[in-house]
Amino acid sequence: MRKLGIHSFVWTGGQTQEGLEEALEKSAAAGYRLIEFAYLRPEKFDLDRLARKSQALDVEIAVTMGLPLTADVSSEDPAVVKAGEEMLANAVKAVRDIGGGKLGGILYSAHTKYSTLPTERGRKNSIAAIARTGDIAKAAGVDLVLEIVNRFESNLLNTTAQGLDFIRETGSDHVRLHLDTFHMNIEEANPAAAIRLAGDKIGYFHIGESNRGYLGDGVIDFDLTFDALLDIGYSRDITFESFSTAIVDEALSLACGIWRDTWTDNQPLALHAKAFIEMRMQEAARRRATNARP
Amino acid sequence: MRKLGIHSFVWTGGQTQEGLEEALEKSAAAGYRLIEFAYLRPEKFDLDRLARKSQALDVEIAVTMGLPLTADVSSEDPAVVKAGEEMLANAVKAVRDIGGGKLGGILYSAHTKYSTLPTERGRKNSIAAIARTGDIAKAAGVDLVLEIVNRFESNLLNTTAQGLDFIRETGSDHVRLHLDTFHMNIEEANPAAAIRLAGDKIGYFHIGESNRGYLGDGVIDFDLTFDALLDIGYSRDITFESFSTAIVDEALSLACGIWRDTWTDNQPLALHAKAFIEMRMQEAARRRATNARP
Amino acid sequence: MRKLGIHSFVWTGGQTQEGLEEALEKSAAAGYRLIEFAYLRPEKFDLDRLARKSQALDVEIAVTMGLPLTADVSSEDPAVVKAGEEMLANAVKAVRDIGGGKLGGILYSAHTKYSTLPTERGRKNSIAAIARTGDIAKAAGVDLVLEIVNRFESNLLNTTAQGLDFIRETGSDHVRLHLDTFHMNIEEANPAAAIRLAGDKIGYFHIGESNRGYLGDGVIDFDLTFDALLDIGYSRDITFESFSTAIVDEALSLACGIWRDTWTDNQPLALHAKAFIEMRMQEAARRRATNARP
Amino acid sequence: MRKLGIHSFVWTGGQTQEGLEEALEKSAAAGYRLIEFAYLRPEKFDLDRLARKSQALDVEIAVTMGLPLTADVSSEDPAVVKAGEEMLANAVKAVRDIGGGKLGGILYSAHTKYSTLPTERGRKNSIAAIARTGDIAKAAGVDLVLEIVNRFESNLLNTTAQGLDFIRETGSDHVRLHLDTFHMNIEEANPAAAIRLAGDKIGYFHIGESNRGYLGDGVIDFDLTFDALLDIGYSRDITFESFSTAIVDEALSLACGIWRDTWTDNQPLALHAKAFIEMRMQEAARRRATNARP
Repeated sequence: MRKLGIHSFVWTGGQTQEGLEEALEKSAAAGYRLIEFAYLRPEKFDLDRLARKSQALDVEIAVTMGLPLTADVSSEDPAVVKAGEEMLANAVKAVRDIGGGKLGGILYSAHTKYSTLPTERGRKNSIAAIARTGDIAKAAGVDLVLEIVNRFESNLLNTTAQGLDFIRETGSDHVRLHLDTFHMNIEEANPAAAIRLAGDKIGYFHIGESNRGYLGDGVIDFDLTFDALLDIGYSRDITFESFSTAIVDEALSLACGIWRDTWTDNQPLALHAKAFIEMRMQEAARRRATNARP
Repeated sequence: MRKLGIHSFVWTGGQTQEGLEEALEKSAAAGYRLIEFAYLRPEKFDLDRLARKSQALDVEIAVTMGLPLTADVSSEDPAVVKAGEEMLANAVKAVRDIGGGKLGGILYSAHTKYSTLPTERGRKNSIAAIARTGDIAKAAGVDLVLEIVNRFESNLLNTTAQGLDFIRETGSDHVRLHLDTFHMNIEEANPAAAIRLAGDKIGYFHIGESNRGYLGDGVIDFDLTFDALLDIGYSRDITFESFSTAIVDEALSLACGIWRDTWTDNQPLALHAKAFIEMRMQEAARRRATNARP
Repeated sequence: MRKLGIHSFVWTGGQTQEGLEEALEKSAAAGYRLIEFAYLRPEKFDLDRLARKSQALDVEIAVTMGLPLTADVSSEDPAVVKAGEEMLANAVKAVRDIGGGKLGGILYSAHTKYSTLPTERGRKNSIAAIARTGDIAKAAGVDLVLEIVNRFESNLLNTTAQGLDFIRETGSDHVRLHLDTFHMNIEEANPAAAIRLAGDKIGYFHIGESNRGYLGDGVIDFDLTFDALLDIGYSRDITFESFSTAIVDEALSLACGIWRDTWTDNQPLALHAKAFIEMRMQEAARRRATNARP
Repeated sequence: MRKLGIHSFVWTGGQTQEGLEEALEKSAAAGYRLIEFAYLRPEKFDLDRLARKSQALDVEIAVTMGLPLTADVSSEDPAVVKAGEEMLANAVKAVRDIGGGKLGGILYSAHTKYSTLPTERGRKNSIAAIARTGDIAKAAGVDLVLEIVNRFESNLLNTTAQGLDFIRETGSDHVRLHLDTFHMNIEEANPAAAIRLAGDKIGYFHIGESNRGYLGDGVIDFDLTFDALLDIGYSRDITFESFSTAIVDEALSLACGIWRDTWTDNQPLALHAKAFIEMRMQEAARRRATNARP
């Protein structure tokens, strides 16, 4: 692991400049070295101030987003696809301007519960759009990672195998996958095997519990997860993500179906998650060493 | 376990009388003693014929459904709630007329990805509607069971604890819960503990894998599930449920986000599921006996 | 949990007074509130000094032992049984004199790899001896707990169900079981169910990994363990146990088959075990609360 | 998997020719294509008759054994080592003469609960003896596989990593490992990772439950086992092993500490084990395919 991050929605709904700055500070105070912001709108926030604060606190910024249906690059409508590509290009620039390291999330379709099957034409549109965005991101020095999400949040890329196929078709060596334990728990036949299948094509990794609450408050076998990440020598960033009605973002909370409190107090949640991830990773490393020692 | 059932969407999308009759026959041929039909519309099908076929084959019928937003008993709009109650009353009658044993599913809200939080008033409306429907079902000799589903298919009852609270508030001793391993895998902090918590308030039980495909093609620990069902002495019906794009029902496939083939051939799927469930249940019973034998 | 303890063989082979005193100090320094000594011989050690040090450090002493074949109360030879009973009575007195709270271990047979099947007469002898020792222990204010161990360390009590049967036949309400996750991993069909089966008959609990090394360096599902301990409201002591060739006790290391280093440095081991147990117990408590909250 | 086998002690204690022949017949009747005999003594049995019966029934013979302390190749006493080497050479010949495919078990030390630590000189003696035995076995067309067993059944090779180190030092390309889930459950920090670590050095594989009884009556995660065997493309034999006091062999039952009935009726045990292993292997293959399919 390079840096351990935390999703900003643990701290704030993300509607105000003050909220984002406070989130940066709280992340730093809890010992995280990366924060993930969602739906960062340059017109709404003072990105320069955020960039300076990020540098001052030594907390790197990652940005994730999902496209709206009006700018869905997996649409069959060229105008909609074009709107999506522009949104992605702008997002890459915003990440670069804020000094961020990566753009991730549901970049290849809308972030929505679809009510139609994906189409082959839409998929081709998405591949072409992501290929071009990959070039822009590479030039900008920004990592581009596609989040594989569950069936209720996109209809296009729900499994790692679909994602690997997709990025292969982009022809880009810059586009990687963004895997997430919450989504894998719903979609993968074998999450640990999916990690090993993806290998160095994993560019970013989310740790979230099966009910999106406290780590340990669910069914995910994180030991298998960390064993698999060791198996592939994963050395990029890992970010903790958790949602509760305690912190509400208009768009994201509804898209993610956050209807109840899985927690009310975010500071103990963040401290626990950091301790949990670090302890389990140490245990996985020790288990691996013990296993191999004659 | 009383009877082992199978969801009809393993066999047919459910649009035609022939499809439903064939599903009954295939269920019987695969050794199941119960079939679950969804969204059974009396105006569309010859229920008498289905009832006779069900009797002749000794395959009991269960019916499950989810309300539409226009007849959502958890709405704040009295007219919408009233439409929902009428739909539920009609469904109870259809189940009775078809000689079925139970009505289940998302009876307490719409079956949809909500884009609003549940409200206290809507919840009270739903409790009152279900209480009254419970009385109607009791008089009709039909079991009424509420399916606890994941956050993307309802915003009201996502956990067993919420469901227990809800049925307690109905004041009805006739309304029970309908639990489902697929949904529990997303929402319960501890699915086996949820089963023990619910105890004899469980009226129906769905066995489905985490990706809704073949049993074994996912992350669910079915040994813990069957151990817990033994712990509470569960003696009602258990039904296998699986969805694939191989069988499409306009409404249900989209509501459930079925975007890919988890299987293409339904007969081996059905035979495997029966063998899987029976073998795991036998193993659980043996494990329990071994554990207790001095 | 009442107190969290640690086995003294993490710190010392137990051959010298200095070693035992240092073990007490190191246990206290690592935050444990109980230490387990094995094979405590009054003729060899200054028990008064140990008692005073235990009080001064507020670290309670528990004593465990296994009988030798020459004093095996499960023997068919009355003289051997008598020698065993005397050894047990002396051990109870030593525990009382040292201000200890409990005597545990393999008190009902020898601690050895038997090469004969247990006999019914030997079992009856053992039951009678333990019944009498129970009376002595009760009068002395010392808890008496029987450790259920794997087949290679005794031939008499290998499972919880056997242990429950055995203590029922003693007729004593003072004798309880001493369960251990290492042994349960070999013998119980379902360790968590065994804990629930034993309920308030569990008087002491050992946490040890499947290879007797670092917690996490093995296959034991400690989440299921702690969930089960919560289910029965376990409120007595829990002690961490680990063996390595790094610390050698002539008798115990050989009896337990400790042939390799599972660790070399005991302090990080002890600190990790405490953090591991406390964190998992907190997670189990939170999981239970989340699961039950509507 | 090449052939699915069963240990003869499911059927017979192995003291009589009739017992062994009946075991062959019952194995064939239960659908197994390999039988494992233990401690086959040419002076006691008519090997030709067994060979003909094995051929007629198309049930291949594998032989496993453990050395006695008087012929322990890991001894420091050259005479004892020599006796061990002769015993191994004779065993290889017996396997060849009976038309068997492999010799396995605890060939590198005694099969006993040691009461001393292994020594470096003894280990070197064992390596040399196994190297020479490997040459003899290769010339005889008999596979030679070393069973990695728990600490109570040998003090020399308890983990896969130790075994890999050992066979590397023999310099032989003919000697492979014989892994067993029962033993791995006690000794390996991560059994599935151990399988992947060993890869094509695994020459034989035992499926046994953690309490040596019915598959499913214990804690072993066989899905992880079969996933790992698929990962390494394991294509050699797999044999089911289970012990109960229902079938007693003087030497083996005592060495293995079999003190209680884990089952009484061997035929349903054998049929269940075959169904269990085949079903889990099919599920592992399907899970792997599903996981990799875009």
